[in-house]
Amino acid sequence: MGGNAASNGAPSRVALLGFGTVGRSVARILCSGEVPQLRLTRIFNRRIARKRVDVDWVPDSVVWTESIDEALAPEVDLVIEVVGGLSPAEQWVRTALDSGKSVVTANKQLIAHRGADLDDLARARGCELRFEASVAGGIPVLRALQDGLAADRLVEVSGIINGTCAYVLSRMEQSGLPFAEALAEAQAAGFAEADPTEDVDGSDAAAKLSILSAVGLRRPLRAADIATRSIRRVEKVDFEYAAELGCTIRQIAHASVRDDGSLFAAVGPALVPLASGFGRVTGNQNLISVRGIFGGETSFSGSGAGGAPTAVAVVSDLLSIHRASRRDHTAAALAEPAHRVSGDLVAPHYVRFTAVDRPGIIASVGAAFARSGINIEAVLQLPNHPKERLPFVTTLEACADSAVNRALGDIAALEWAIEPPLSLPMLAAGQRLSGTRA
Amino acid sequence: MGGNAASNGAPSRVALLGFGTVGRSVARILCSGEVPQLRLTRIFNRRIARKRVDVDWVPDSVVWTESIDEALAPEVDLVIEVVGGLSPAEQWVRTALDSGKSVVTANKQLIAHRGADLDDLARARGCELRFEASVAGGIPVLRALQDGLAADRLVEVSGIINGTCAYVLSRMEQSGLPFAEALAEAQAAGFAEADPTEDVDGSDAAAKLSILSAVGLRRPLRAADIATRSIRRVEKVDFEYAAELGCTIRQIAHASVRDDGSLFAAVGPALVPLASGFGRVTGNQNLISVRGIFGGETSFSGSGAGGAPTAVAVVSDLLSIHRASRRDHTAAALAEPAHRVSGDLVAPHYVRFTAVDRPGIIASVGAAFARSGINIEAVLQLPNHPKERLPFVTTLEACADSAVNRALGDIAALEWAIEPPLSLPMLAAGQRLSGTRA
Repeated sequence: MGGNAASNGAPSRVALLGFGTVGRSVARILCSGEVPQLRLTRIFNRRIARKRVDVDWVPDSVVWTESIDEALAPEVDLVIEVVGGLSPAEQWVRTALDSGKSVVTANKQLIAHRGADLDDLARARGCELRFEASVAGGIPVLRALQDGLAADRLVEVSGIINGTCAYVLSRMEQSGLPFAEALAEAQAAGFAEADPTEDVDGSDAAAKLSILSAVGLRRPLRAADIATRSIRRVEKVDFEYAAELGCTIRQIAHASVRDDGSLFAAVGPALVPLASGFGRVTGNQNLISVRGIFGGETSFSGSGAGGAPTAVAVVSDLLSIHRASRRDHTAAALAEPAHRVSGDLVAPHYVRFTAVDRPGIIASVGAAFARSGINIEAVLQLPNHPKERLPFVTTLEACADSAVNRALGDIAALEWAIEPPLSLPMLAAGQRLSGTRA
Repeated sequence: MGGNAASNGAPSRVALLGFGTVGRSVARILCSGEVPQLRLTRIFNRRIARKRVDVDWVPDSVVWTESIDEALAPEVDLVIEVVGGLSPAEQWVRTALDSGKSVVTANKQLIAHRGADLDDLARARGCELRFEASVAGGIPVLRALQDGLAADRLVEVSGIINGTCAYVLSRMEQSGLPFAEALAEAQAAGFAEADPTEDVDGSDAAAKLSILSAVGLRRPLRAADIATRSIRRVEKVDFEYAAELGCTIRQIAHASVRDDGSLFAAVGPALVPLASGFGRVTGNQNLISVRGIFGGETSFSGSGAGGAPTAVAVVSDLLSIHRASRRDHTAAALAEPAHRVSGDLVAPHYVRFTAVDRPGIIASVGAAFARSGINIEAVLQLPNHPKERLPFVTTLEACADSAVNRALGDIAALEWAIEPPLSLPMLAAGQRLSGTRA
């Protein structure tokens, strides 16, 4: 961590350059008490007084400044660059690295165009340059490719990595809006810039793809060498034809190593199957999929943009540098269990009964659930089962497993019930129980 | 890396304990030339002579041995444990850590039941214990939770993490097989053990969930404290009812921190929406989804089992330890581009034309594509468009972008073509262009 490393147990002192959407979210995490290893000590921005208005959650000890020299003072250990753009961000990052301060950046243009040079400088000064947040916001995909799949040789990376295009194309798909209207809506909702050229024409995704190719395929390539095609020419009628073909349209970034060792890379709209992972990406979600010669296909999805997810990536990079500076390679994880665990899930339930058919069965089931305070949502009975062994299903509104089991105990005693009922929780998409929306 | 670290540029010397499916795949990667930082020096197994038969790709310098003392000789830096089970694996791992050798293991039972203790021992001896391969095979999910999302506070983890259950349940769904037949098929195909109890009744997934909870939620819990329900009682008719509800059935492992700080954890069959990520998991695929208070939902999917993907996880862990021992925290990634890049994708194509309707249009399109050596797969024309501005679509068999563009240049000159055609690649599920299968 350079010459400024604090003593072993002390937090690393952090300067934040840029107090826009991502910068504010980074500051929120650093000031939340969740990461005591890091202490925010400086916040730099132009017209800082304006930025400071209404921010009452930053400790008084933090220095707010418009002076880059003050922001990069000797006492600072780590620097966060979330200003964006090449200039003056590049010069500030150089100055920080040159003085032995490690830098974490979310700046895709800086990494795509100056990354190799800045990385060389960091190595020469014995510090680190990290940039997880520069691609796919909150998804820790660069680390996964670089470390988690380090033993594989990846030969293909494909992704939906531009939120504006994902938003515009999924709105065109869902609402039949023409391109211009979907774009205007995205601009009004804050999902597209006033000048959307970089996003819709592909240069934003090309910059990210150049980073994915360097890290994942170990094949650095210039963003400018990547063939791009705009999504502007996609029309409403193309979604109609795509649907006929079982497909939808998304902007896909793709790079692969061909069998002869040459590299293929392109960004542009493509037809993808509606039922595929790519086909189901909407809003600001990103999805990246890689293929390795040993491990096959691995995919990563999550929030591709937004202040808070991007800030998680930035602060996680800071924590890695902090740990490495303390030579603490084994982050605390395993410990003796000290937690009491409940297995009593509250969720909608599916319950299948097997009955000898007779009048009054539904009434007795309803009464038993009512006694346990459970509401039935629906009763289903599929045709073509014998009356002596008739399966039927009730779905229940959200209730605890334990309550279901109490009711089922009552029901099992009824004489029409010829085998114990089967109860399963229902994990609905969009429910708080996560994971059902991949 | 303990007292045995080699000098800075030298490879780490690796002993492999266990030469079964995963062990062989690990040895394959170590002997492939892809990872020169690691040198395989010892292979330990019972009845080693039998294991060595037909293995001609291991260098003569490797010592094959039945003696654990010889396998853990002083010259060895790193130890891989892929023997499985608690005993004698635990004692061998203890011996290795005790002598300052870092250990990488794929052993979920060992980590779930003895992990805290072994981790303490590793720290006390200044070495490392890593176990990425113990959960979800080739998916680098533990590293992503521990490092990549380190700055978030994760409150929920859900997953399909048992390949036997995923195979059996997806076969029941697809083919209407009863449980016993689907299980027998899985056993015949090598996807289920002769005694499938641990898999189908949930204790395998519970062990993995206890590791995910410790690493991701920072809440260690005993596998034995996790409520499990078997998938044995799920019948064919349940898939019929589930389909009526837009769902299918999968074994889901779930742990979450409730608002009052208490922990919920359970493993068992559940209804999941057919269109969700969980609903589309088949075969030996695993899918893990987490939710954090800052970053929202992030998902990871890939091969959950199999020798080669699991071996990628093992060897990636070895590489991390090797790098840390060399204090090389910034793995080489960014470098000046030295690669020529092609953007000429070979794929099936979608081409939309806009025409003034008249006879002979299809003939002229067909002739132009034929001149460029391109086969038309289908012609589509949706109704209700005006004859003066008629969109129609051709789909083309796999061909190069450049050939399509050549043909479209010819076609643009024809007088019925009132605007330039739009050409998009079609990324089909299952095609070699990855990522369309998420």
